[in-house]
Amino acid sequence: MPISPSGPSLAEVGESKVIEEIMGAAPSQVNGDDAAVLVSAQPNSRVVVSTDMLVERRHFRLDWSTPREVGRKAILQNFADIEAMGARPISALLALSAPPETPLGLVRELAAGIEEEVSRFSAELVGGDLASGPGLVLAVTAVGSLGGDRRPLTLDAARPGQRVVAAGAIGDSAAGLALLERHGREVPEEFEAFRDAHTHPHLPPGRGMIARATGASAATDNSDGLVADLGTLARRSGVAIDLDPRAIAPGPAMRRVGEHLGIDPWCWVLGGGEDHTILATTSGDVPSGFRCIGTVQRGSGVTVGGQPPAYRNGWLSF
Amino acid sequence: MPISPSGPSLAEVGESKVIEEIMGAAPSQVNGDDAAVLVSAQPNSRVVVSTDMLVERRHFRLDWSTPREVGRKAILQNFADIEAMGARPISALLALSAPPETPLGLVRELAAGIEEEVSRFSAELVGGDLASGPGLVLAVTAVGSLGGDRRPLTLDAARPGQRVVAAGAIGDSAAGLALLERHGREVPEEFEAFRDAHTHPHLPPGRGMIARATGASAATDNSDGLVADLGTLARRSGVAIDLDPRAIAPGPAMRRVGEHLGIDPWCWVLGGGEDHTILATTSGDVPSGFRCIGTVQRGSGVTVGGQPPAYRNGWLSF
Repeated sequence: MPISPSGPSLAEVGESKVIEEIMGAAPSQVNGDDAAVLVSAQPNSRVVVSTDMLVERRHFRLDWSTPREVGRKAILQNFADIEAMGARPISALLALSAPPETPLGLVRELAAGIEEEVSRFSAELVGGDLASGPGLVLAVTAVGSLGGDRRPLTLDAARPGQRVVAAGAIGDSAAGLALLERHGREVPEEFEAFRDAHTHPHLPPGRGMIARATGASAATDNSDGLVADLGTLARRSGVAIDLDPRAIAPGPAMRRVGEHLGIDPWCWVLGGGEDHTILATTSGDVPSGFRCIGTVQRGSGVTVGGQPPAYRNGWLSF
Repeated sequence: MPISPSGPSLAEVGESKVIEEIMGAAPSQVNGDDAAVLVSAQPNSRVVVSTDMLVERRHFRLDWSTPREVGRKAILQNFADIEAMGARPISALLALSAPPETPLGLVRELAAGIEEEVSRFSAELVGGDLASGPGLVLAVTAVGSLGGDRRPLTLDAARPGQRVVAAGAIGDSAAGLALLERHGREVPEEFEAFRDAHTHPHLPPGRGMIARATGASAATDNSDGLVADLGTLARRSGVAIDLDPRAIAPGPAMRRVGEHLGIDPWCWVLGGGEDHTILATTSGDVPSGFRCIGTVQRGSGVTVGGQPPAYRNGWLSF
């Protein structure tokens, strides 16, 4: 199933043509020099930076995801880290390693996906680097702006008595990955939304800023797994987190995926990552677009309805 | 010749131990959250960002360079791009892909090299990402601060009548590479300085800022090759550049390397890159630490004493 473009290779067209295609697909007035000079930030704002690497066959497969989806997800997972500080993503940089035989069209589609996602955040691809290498590797750096003098949302700032709130899907990406592992890209039509939750997850811009503006103190995003990521937050804050099983329970559609695959869907909810849903703790009201999924308590570790989680396996790089 | 560490592998010690080692070798108070919040920049300053990727066997070889040298060079080549804008490097991020069997000691040494180089610039490693992948790939992003309201030093700002000035070695890295290709790391003792110019080139901090403060308008660094990089600058500025052959002529030591290898050393001076020497154009005095190597003229292209360069091959990614 050819979901990747064919046509002339990077080696055939040469470096300057490849750069021209990327800059054409994702234009910016500040790209193209030794480094990019960003527009002056607002007074009293701080710069926030984060980087993430995607390795082919480790983080994505080109028979499961289109290059455009890979480009979108590369931006999204980096921008989620900026949002999780309560900041606004403003720029991205792309360092790309690709084999010389890679079709130019594939890189063009990657860049188009990057442009789609940065545009959603009113941000820009402002620079990059291109290298020949044995496999496809994308390293994206995101730059954000943290306005005002409130503290950023940090991993160590959860306090007992706070609510734990979430602003998006939990477990959908992992359910989609399980479907891809079983079926490849041609999953049953009724389950396509889960596949898409894995290949192009959705992050509504501004949730991190909203959480910060309405009194949240700590945040992270669901990248490695709900229990793993909240476990890190709990450990760094010196608190316990108890999740409400009714608030995070798999919905009817996810349960049908579980029945179809013969897998307990709770393993996706508790152990699956890559939803990039913003998870925050707050003493105030539940911020707009969020829902309450648990509480912060004295103690340590993550529980579900007071019990140890049935699944806790998260993503590990090694 | 074992110049790389042995010992337990990344897979054996696990991700969190690897991150702990990197953060121990290159400590920073702002590292360790979803993203790094940088200290407030001075008023009226702009943020400058750049990224560069190093792929094992393409950009470095671990039988030629120690991991510490690779770490240093990864920072240096990124900071050179910040300096070439006339800005001050303040932070770096490292995205690292490594095979699971990579010794932990290798990553520790990489991080130690990164710390050595960022420290020379009073900068910090503020964040990163770690991925398992088939080869060793480093993607470094550099963040700089551009103070004051003068323009940055851009590729398109060279003007006829200006001097072309340089602040470091030209061709030394390429001569070192040629020695490594012939001898491996054990080059003849009298030529070790050239090997070292390739494996750990030197960039004196602040040259870009000095050039900008004393009236330079355009700058780049010698990364792809003198003729290639100045050719880009000339094209982007719509000018010609004539290099003074006496100012860039290979010195006695480089000529001896040429005789030893049977290679015309002019090919290193004109075609060799990776010196990361700051090259600027200025209407004012030659800035401190720089020397004059040519003039900006009306026209197009790069000449040497009015003649087409004998060598012009530069680094190409594909």
